[in-house]
Amino acid sequence: MHQTRLLTTSDVTAIAKRVGLDALMDAMIDRLSRKFSEYQAEQYLIPVRSGLHYHAPHDGLIEWMPALENQRSAFVKAVSYHPENPDRYGVPSVSSTGALYDIHTGRLAALIDSTFLTALRTGAASAVASRILAKPDSATVGIIGAGAQAVTQLHALLRCFPVESVLFYDIDERAVKSFSSRISAFLPDGVRVAESTVNDVVRYADILCTCTSLAAGEKPLFEDMLTKPWLHVNAVGADFPGKKELPLSFVRRSLVVPDFREQAEREGECQMLEHAEIGPDIITMLQTNGGNLDGQNRTTIFDSTGYALEDQAAMEMMLELAEAQNIGSMIELVRPPADPINPYDPEISGAEQSRSNRAKYSN
Amino acid sequence: MHQTRLLTTSDVTAIAKRVGLDALMDAMIDRLSRKFSEYQAEQYLIPVRSGLHYHAPHDGLIEWMPALENQRSAFVKAVSYHPENPDRYGVPSVSSTGALYDIHTGRLAALIDSTFLTALRTGAASAVASRILAKPDSATVGIIGAGAQAVTQLHALLRCFPVESVLFYDIDERAVKSFSSRISAFLPDGVRVAESTVNDVVRYADILCTCTSLAAGEKPLFEDMLTKPWLHVNAVGADFPGKKELPLSFVRRSLVVPDFREQAEREGECQMLEHAEIGPDIITMLQTNGGNLDGQNRTTIFDSTGYALEDQAAMEMMLELAEAQNIGSMIELVRPPADPINPYDPEISGAEQSRSNRAKYSN
Repeated sequence: MHQTRLLTTSDVTAIAKRVGLDALMDAMIDRLSRKFSEYQAEQYLIPVRSGLHYHAPHDGLIEWMPALENQRSAFVKAVSYHPENPDRYGVPSVSSTGALYDIHTGRLAALIDSTFLTALRTGAASAVASRILAKPDSATVGIIGAGAQAVTQLHALLRCFPVESVLFYDIDERAVKSFSSRISAFLPDGVRVAESTVNDVVRYADILCTCTSLAAGEKPLFEDMLTKPWLHVNAVGADFPGKKELPLSFVRRSLVVPDFREQAEREGECQMLEHAEIGPDIITMLQTNGGNLDGQNRTTIFDSTGYALEDQAAMEMMLELAEAQNIGSMIELVRPPADPINPYDPEISGAEQSRSNRAKYSN
Repeated sequence: MHQTRLLTTSDVTAIAKRVGLDALMDAMIDRLSRKFSEYQAEQYLIPVRSGLHYHAPHDGLIEWMPALENQRSAFVKAVSYHPENPDRYGVPSVSSTGALYDIHTGRLAALIDSTFLTALRTGAASAVASRILAKPDSATVGIIGAGAQAVTQLHALLRCFPVESVLFYDIDERAVKSFSSRISAFLPDGVRVAESTVNDVVRYADILCTCTSLAAGEKPLFEDMLTKPWLHVNAVGADFPGKKELPLSFVRRSLVVPDFREQAEREGECQMLEHAEIGPDIITMLQTNGGNLDGQNRTTIFDSTGYALEDQAAMEMMLELAEAQNIGSMIELVRPPADPINPYDPEISGAEQSRSNRAKYSN
């Protein structure tokens, strides 16, 4: 009863391989959609994340994202963000572990590599938002920032829209070069993929995903311009105070739907807006059937800062799959002592401590 | 380079057994004393802890305590507190894991069962405070609340003072009955241990440790009364808003030294005081040689709420011992992908996804 279930990268990879990428993304989209639709505020306690932020030796951020579901689960995802990682160390900028606690005793019930799951749920969340906010027959996906997040953004959208072409832009030549091969595992036949300029990506997109690592205080990714009248943007990059990807006038004239309003006002595109200028959050949109958006021909923005509720859904899904497939291992990370009110295990205390040999007190 | 060092309860127990309880406690006291003496505020970022607090199915609290040491380490201790655990489930009320992150990449470098370490460092912190605040020839230790924390409180004090007698009180008959056997591993010959009343414990103590699980809003453990003129109290129990162990008038007339002022004002005995009534914190006391307390004949209180700086010191010590003794294991909890900007490992993507077989998008 006191063991901790461990799902390492290898375990998560094995599960994903068995399920298949498309089926896994579909399941994640369905689960998130259900989670948002069934969410009741009084059943959850989800504080805005906080973290340790530093600039030396490199820019870095370690955050914890907690989520309590009443009587059911307590969950904390730790996530680190080191934007220089790929260039400096050849490892991803984001790395993450999820910790699930037994709500009865507070013991650590499961520990999961959440790096892959974070990318998966971020893609799925954009798909859920796009299904309710974007033009249903969206055929052109635009991508600014073709790194790790772009892969799952595109994958999720391909599962929900009749995509015919993908236009992408990145300042990093290597990201540009490898993009096609990184999406080849799930790109349907006949979908055209082309590198483009920022302006053309914005101009021609029905759905635009911005998922860059721009730094806090930098100017927006593009100047406001003429777009398709019903352009929908999944703004994924902004997740820190001062970090904003979109131009103010574009944000002002769009319907802005945050994932988690309080957090988006601190860290997302919503930073630019007055409280009253912000639209309903994604949960409200889903629970009110999208507020009758159909045919409104207005630009829309999903302000995706990353929501612990999504992580909880992803972790639950992965744990269920692990159980069904019997993958993962159990470790005895924290073993309760024989006597709950003795921190000194008899095994330690039993160690021969010759009383006469012991040094006396020293003040 | 991407592996995580794992120190389980068994590993920590094995290390403690090899070192011996007395030597381990001495090392912890020395290390904490040094840590406090050398602390420079500009080298650390230690936010006040926060957490998930709930009342169903039982009272529970899961907190995270972060500590950043510039350019050196980022550390987060997760600690759960479920006061009904011993009675309901036969497991300790406190359980804890420490996570150390690589400051260069943000990867999880080590994961440690911190339950034993939390008890050890809490005892050691009281010893460090008592050495500077209590009468140097303190001979009588009083204990109110003879549970898990009392064991390490007493052990630490025995290492630093010429203790002749120990008076203790607990409302729980089982804690009373087992106390002698729980401290037998380290109790020097000739030290008298006796159960007593609350009032006599307070009246005769030179150093008093209060380490109870009293609930928020309950009345203090004792009424203010005549004590030894230089009584020193290590107030360990109060660690949550509303939770206070000591009577207001006693706190008011004592020198109150918090471990971490900002946190103690929220969660400790300092809740009762105005900002200006609170004394210097333990770090300031150590760095100013105790503010010339000698012979001042005033009651003193160490308001110990639990400080992430102490946890960082404990974790560092345990990791050094683990390395020296070659104890612990390495796990590949988070393995970086071959391509840092592809969340889909080639192993997953390679899974045969027959394109023609795949369902089309569904909106």
